[in-house]
Amino acid sequence: MEATLSAGIGTPPTRSVPDTPAQVDLAALTPGTPAFVDAVERVLLDFFATRREIVDPLGPVFVDASEALEQFVLRGGKRSRPGFAWTGWLAAGGDPAGPDARAVLTACAALELVQACALVHDDIIDSSRTRRGFPTVHVDFADRHGAAGWPGDGAEYGRAVAILIGDLALAWADDLVHEAGLAPAALARFAPVWARMRTEVLGGQLLDINGEAGGDESVDAALRINRYKTAAYTIERPLHLGAALAGADEALIAALRTYGTDVGIAFQLRDDQLGVFGDPAVTGKPSGDDLREGKRTVLIAEALRRADPESAALIRTGLGTDLDDAGVDRMRALLVELGAVDEVERRIRELTDTGLRAVATSGATPQAKQLLHDMALAATRRSA
Amino acid sequence: MEATLSAGIGTPPTRSVPDTPAQVDLAALTPGTPAFVDAVERVLLDFFATRREIVDPLGPVFVDASEALEQFVLRGGKRSRPGFAWTGWLAAGGDPAGPDARAVLTACAALELVQACALVHDDIIDSSRTRRGFPTVHVDFADRHGAAGWPGDGAEYGRAVAILIGDLALAWADDLVHEAGLAPAALARFAPVWARMRTEVLGGQLLDINGEAGGDESVDAALRINRYKTAAYTIERPLHLGAALAGADEALIAALRTYGTDVGIAFQLRDDQLGVFGDPAVTGKPSGDDLREGKRTVLIAEALRRADPESAALIRTGLGTDLDDAGVDRMRALLVELGAVDEVERRIRELTDTGLRAVATSGATPQAKQLLHDMALAATRRSA
Repeated sequence: MEATLSAGIGTPPTRSVPDTPAQVDLAALTPGTPAFVDAVERVLLDFFATRREIVDPLGPVFVDASEALEQFVLRGGKRSRPGFAWTGWLAAGGDPAGPDARAVLTACAALELVQACALVHDDIIDSSRTRRGFPTVHVDFADRHGAAGWPGDGAEYGRAVAILIGDLALAWADDLVHEAGLAPAALARFAPVWARMRTEVLGGQLLDINGEAGGDESVDAALRINRYKTAAYTIERPLHLGAALAGADEALIAALRTYGTDVGIAFQLRDDQLGVFGDPAVTGKPSGDDLREGKRTVLIAEALRRADPESAALIRTGLGTDLDDAGVDRMRALLVELGAVDEVERRIRELTDTGLRAVATSGATPQAKQLLHDMALAATRRSA
Repeated sequence: MEATLSAGIGTPPTRSVPDTPAQVDLAALTPGTPAFVDAVERVLLDFFATRREIVDPLGPVFVDASEALEQFVLRGGKRSRPGFAWTGWLAAGGDPAGPDARAVLTACAALELVQACALVHDDIIDSSRTRRGFPTVHVDFADRHGAAGWPGDGAEYGRAVAILIGDLALAWADDLVHEAGLAPAALARFAPVWARMRTEVLGGQLLDINGEAGGDESVDAALRINRYKTAAYTIERPLHLGAALAGADEALIAALRTYGTDVGIAFQLRDDQLGVFGDPAVTGKPSGDDLREGKRTVLIAEALRRADPESAALIRTGLGTDLDDAGVDRMRALLVELGAVDEVERRIRELTDTGLRAVATSGATPQAKQLLHDMALAATRRSA
């Protein structure tokens, strides 16, 4: 259920966190590069090390759980949210060679812990069994329950532990912000945006669950989920957070937020399109996977809005079932015929344009403008 | 699974939050009194009102969820954790008639939102169906799913929503701390204790789940759960938080923490004893309820440690089963015969004594010493 920008920006590097306490040159950091990913993971690694002092006295059971969280967080991802936050800070004139850079990068890295909570809890909610090629946290602990030969329900145990590990990630996200070393004034600017971001992503997840349960088929409902679950959380608020840290003025913040909302929704629309039409060889997912999962996307909502009763019934009965290749092809043809695909492509172009225009005409630094331009195209013109 | 101090301190008042924006006289506030409960609930009510601005744009589904959280939080409880935090602040010379009092009370009230997360998630973990006489959050939303006539699994839907509502409570707890209006220096003293408290309670819950799953029967394991799940979270860290806000010195903080740990564990031991021997007419719970639930308490661990193989087998096979009254009576008699009951009573006395002595010989204000004395006796000598 969780969209990821991993595929959107550059090539996912095969890498491991450096063992040495690298003195990364922050001045040269570019979001999306392996060096940026390294720098964020170094912050996270150092933070996890500081938790040991609190965790250890509770004994090995809790140590195991916090190590499971650490492994989960460090297992991968392109660190897109910290990347956008860092870019927001650069856009508003943050100096990566200056004395605040380390604290800012640390606060940006805290977004990865919010994300860990979102993913761990989302995987429970969706009953997902794998994540990034590994068992999900609840499955991992259900397996440990089984391996220990304990009596009782292993699935329930796994779910219980995963709920607590997600909570821990959310609490630790705040701890990392508090311990980042931000100046009090910067922290005071950061906190209200941080508050909005967390409430919005939880709200977005709730709307998503509710949409699936109650079957709200409207385009507006799907767009609202994209806005809060993806755009606000992944691009808009991270940019806003970074800009707030740099003390950006209202006009620049407004421009960055417009970019974040529009490009963020366009990113999700591209994701939805690839989920139905993507090449399995490129996306790494079975063809038409989103159709089998029955995802209620804008693409589907547009199709339903345009369909006559007969076509609508065809879509509704096929969606969320174990379609064979011919069934997927029929559904695809229908989405094209109804004009839903063209409409989604039109929206992607329009949103990318408005987002890019907002930044181009803003007071963002030239470096940030270039970065945001590249990031927008990578997120919306990709094929995987 | 969650112990509550409600029964411990005074009589739970039948009350509702005042509708008018009361100008409560903070100088006269005494933890455990209806006036204190009112003052805390007024802070919470005002805070929930400030969230509307963030919640409303996401639409009625999210408004409903945040209202469910608000109702849950305001439904009751004696506000023991804010009470101990306030007392810690008083103990270190905090001036309830001074300019910081409002911000301090607000930060203390944030503990109730951490507690809301703990309870909502705990109820999922324990599959509890009622809480404070109402359906638990996950049951409530499962019921709403049914009432709406939606397809799909209502229980899964309820669980998903409750996971997110608990997350929201945890995020909002931080927001309330940030927005309390604390001076930056006070916030900087508060934050590391707040971090420890949240990590410890999550660790304590994890140990509890693990103890139940893996059946660690040792006295040490049971004491460690009591320490982190109850004592640290309910008394020690709240006192520590309040003292940190007032800028207490290390010696006073150490004394308050000793009190909190010892009295907190003694409180839980009393709870365990009442869970087996309490008078149903006074506790409001069926007699011997903890035996039927199979709770792994210090009382049980002490009995098992002292039992010969035959008695131990009797305890292990009876625990967690649907015992009839005669079965409960047999188990009780065994716990008495084995000396477990006397041992627990001895521990309660000893812990209460060491806790009280630590505070009596500390630099806490006389008013706080008296309050802490009364709170300790109420928590450990109660019959319900």
